[in-house]
Amino acid sequence: MTDISQSAALETARAYHRAWTSGDLDGAIAHVADDIICRAPGGDITGKDAYRSFLGGFAANVTGLTDVAAFGDEEHVVLFYLPHTAATSTAAAAEHFTIRDGQIVESELVFDRLSFTPQQQ
Amino acid sequence: MTDISQSAALETARAYHRAWTSGDLDGAIAHVADDIICRAPGGDITGKDAYRSFLGGFAANVTGLTDVAAFGDEEHVVLFYLPHTAATSTAAAAEHFTIRDGQIVESELVFDRLSFTPQQQ
Repeated sequence: MTDISQSAALETARAYHRAWTSGDLDGAIAHVADDIICRAPGGDITGKDAYRSFLGGFAANVTGLTDVAAFGDEEHVVLFYLPHTAATSTAAAAEHFTIRDGQIVESELVFDRLSFTPQQQ
Repeated sequence: MTDISQSAALETARAYHRAWTSGDLDGAIAHVADDIICRAPGGDITGKDAYRSFLGGFAANVTGLTDVAAFGDEEHVVLFYLPHTAATSTAAAAEHFTIRDGQIVESELVFDRLSFTPQQQ
């Protein structure tokens, strides 16, 4: 796994990432700002409550994880990883976080919906 | 745009990225190894010739670009950006490159096919 930066923002993002991918949804959401905006495939999610529902729904289907890369500077972090689900363990996801005062205020999320829910094909 | 690293690998990836997003397919492919493996949504692409066809097909539909983040270390780079097409200018793409001896030997690419070809929905 690629990880050269040790910024506080990167530490926040990694703590968030470790939490939700290990089933600790409360621990993950503790790093999220009340007014988070998440730009996800298919639409934006606004606010911590809606984001918690969205993340919880995805996390419930995750059976494992391959971390690929994590980079960050003072305010921005990119994580690149392969979430394992019943459908695939080789499809990538990436997130670009904006982090201020130790909280994730914005997330741009990209994954291929068809890879994770192939019945849509 | 986030860009703190100045590694040679990052410079290679950025030169590749600038080239194909500005219509210079030959210039982009000059940074690609003959035996590149690209793991893309829907399947792998192996070899420079197949990759050139794949990249050219996507590039032909790109009308603009918003760069979001670029990070790299000695051997790995992540780019995060919004390719503009007729379908969308707000859907993200991310690439994780492995770069050796100044050439891209592996690319993991993620974008949401449904966002870029919404008629599949």
